[in-house]
Amino acid sequence: MPQLDLLALGNAIVDVIAHTEDDFLVSRKLQKGSMNLIDEATALDIYEAMGPATIISGGSAANTVVGAASLGLRAGFIGKVRNDEAGDHYRHDMRATGVAFDSTSAEDGPATARSFILVTPDGERTMNTYLGACQGLGTADVDAEVVRSAKIVYLEGYLWDPPAAKDAFRKAVEIAHGAGNLVSLTLSDSFCVDRFRDEFLDLMRGGHIDILFANIHELKALYQTADENAALDALRNEKLPHEHFLAAITRSEEGAMVVTRGSTQTVKAHPVERVVDTTGAGDLFAAGFLSGLVKGLDHATCARLGGMAASEVISHLGARPQADLADMARQNGIL
Amino acid sequence: MPQLDLLALGNAIVDVIAHTEDDFLVSRKLQKGSMNLIDEATALDIYEAMGPATIISGGSAANTVVGAASLGLRAGFIGKVRNDEAGDHYRHDMRATGVAFDSTSAEDGPATARSFILVTPDGERTMNTYLGACQGLGTADVDAEVVRSAKIVYLEGYLWDPPAAKDAFRKAVEIAHGAGNLVSLTLSDSFCVDRFRDEFLDLMRGGHIDILFANIHELKALYQTADENAALDALRNEKLPHEHFLAAITRSEEGAMVVTRGSTQTVKAHPVERVVDTTGAGDLFAAGFLSGLVKGLDHATCARLGGMAASEVISHLGARPQADLADMARQNGIL
Repeated sequence: MPQLDLLALGNAIVDVIAHTEDDFLVSRKLQKGSMNLIDEATALDIYEAMGPATIISGGSAANTVVGAASLGLRAGFIGKVRNDEAGDHYRHDMRATGVAFDSTSAEDGPATARSFILVTPDGERTMNTYLGACQGLGTADVDAEVVRSAKIVYLEGYLWDPPAAKDAFRKAVEIAHGAGNLVSLTLSDSFCVDRFRDEFLDLMRGGHIDILFANIHELKALYQTADENAALDALRNEKLPHEHFLAAITRSEEGAMVVTRGSTQTVKAHPVERVVDTTGAGDLFAAGFLSGLVKGLDHATCARLGGMAASEVISHLGARPQADLADMARQNGIL
Repeated sequence: MPQLDLLALGNAIVDVIAHTEDDFLVSRKLQKGSMNLIDEATALDIYEAMGPATIISGGSAANTVVGAASLGLRAGFIGKVRNDEAGDHYRHDMRATGVAFDSTSAEDGPATARSFILVTPDGERTMNTYLGACQGLGTADVDAEVVRSAKIVYLEGYLWDPPAAKDAFRKAVEIAHGAGNLVSLTLSDSFCVDRFRDEFLDLMRGGHIDILFANIHELKALYQTADENAALDALRNEKLPHEHFLAAITRSEEGAMVVTRGSTQTVKAHPVERVVDTTGAGDLFAAGFLSGLVKGLDHATCARLGGMAASEVISHLGARPQADLADMARQNGIL
């Protein structure tokens, strides 16, 4: 069993991305910036109505491990696709980026998951996700030996949506902590937080999470407040059992904050020439931050590395990096 | 039958695009900038070896009609896909751009065509094309009524590669000219010209082509000379039966030339900030140029519109425009 730096468990989703005008979102009553779960009929309906689309492998936690691999980490992924054209391409892409991906493909049942992503002229993305084969992800996909081999296990809040994945999530957490490894969670999306707030808080308060990722909207949703500072105070006032708990809170162009029991550090955003598509910004922030942690960098530098990775991914269509992030980090004097 | 401004006949190809280093081309003995025809086994081999890939509908003449539709033309396409995931997505993309595409999908036989496109850091693309279902394109796909309805029929030299498509090509030419419409040909690729030089020259000299598109390399290949001026002179000295024959010759960042029996005009290239991927540059030049002709613009303005459309498509990955080209033309004072 090769040693991994980072292992992610997440929904394996193919992104189908089209540029669109704001009117289209309004006519479909879609809230800009949100992730909406849709059934197969709605998926077909949106696909029919949307413009010409670029197909790029995605999935939140998967994007993160791909970014981490680009930064030189030994990375692995657990997720479920079907053995269809999209699923085979998804597997190709994971392996082509050097990410270990050995989860079996479903041989029947729903198709590989798709997220129909509408990108408005401001670069904001609105996601409409048909979970398809992700619904087949379960505890059988969590190989204990692989989990034990990974310094950090990274989990997405979106795993609460498919029925069996939260059990896979819990199994991975138990094995990772049993082996003395770290567990990281991203809150994923503020609507996702609304769906599963109590369970996410229980995970944190039960000591199951060592490193939390959230954007400020998700943090406000977690603590049910419209006030940024109130949300941050609530986080700081958590009586968390782990003294080493840390949270990285992103605030788009306002940069990021690293919150620990004793301190709050603020790091500026990395400059970006033109925002083309914000899909994957949070995923790549986590990729950079976790890569920094594995490399033993201080928290502020981890956040800078996260910001840099995020800036690359929002400068083009799709949530997977197109540049060599390690090269980019060296050019920016971060690595 | 609705009236069309432009109808293209071409290979319906899904592009599978990956960034790569020059070393990869060298190790595979691929000539940078070329289009190589590959069999299924080689396709699988290249796909396995290439990096994570973005999937975008392509095909040379198809890219041209999509560009023309973005410039406001009523456009149609004739080409052959299979009824697989890639083929269905291809059809979606054509229709989503407003291009009429009613060719039936093959229900068996080879898969929808793929071009595995390797983009090097300089933005140059090297294409490896598995023709798949395109081999099923034939005269039965050429609906006489549709061809008669189109002011210009646009054909790609690549149609000489699949076995039956050249018959479809010839049928379309005969119907178009029978109806008094214009016929346009792109020479496609200098290797393609090497394969079919005599037939392309016969088409021109037989009066079957009214508007010729070629880049300077293709023109040099056509007249078997390494000298640009000798190639241009050879073109000007053609005793073509059509007095209205015109050729648009592109020269990358050096702009374009419009050659008629009586004149040669030179037009500067449209500025482009950063070349990301040159795939589709020639296709979109043709889109702009033909759109200008349909709109009754003079040749120099047609070439400027072509240059503008090409500049848009090389500024991002993939050979289909991501911006509204008509808007862009208005902002640039061309329309």
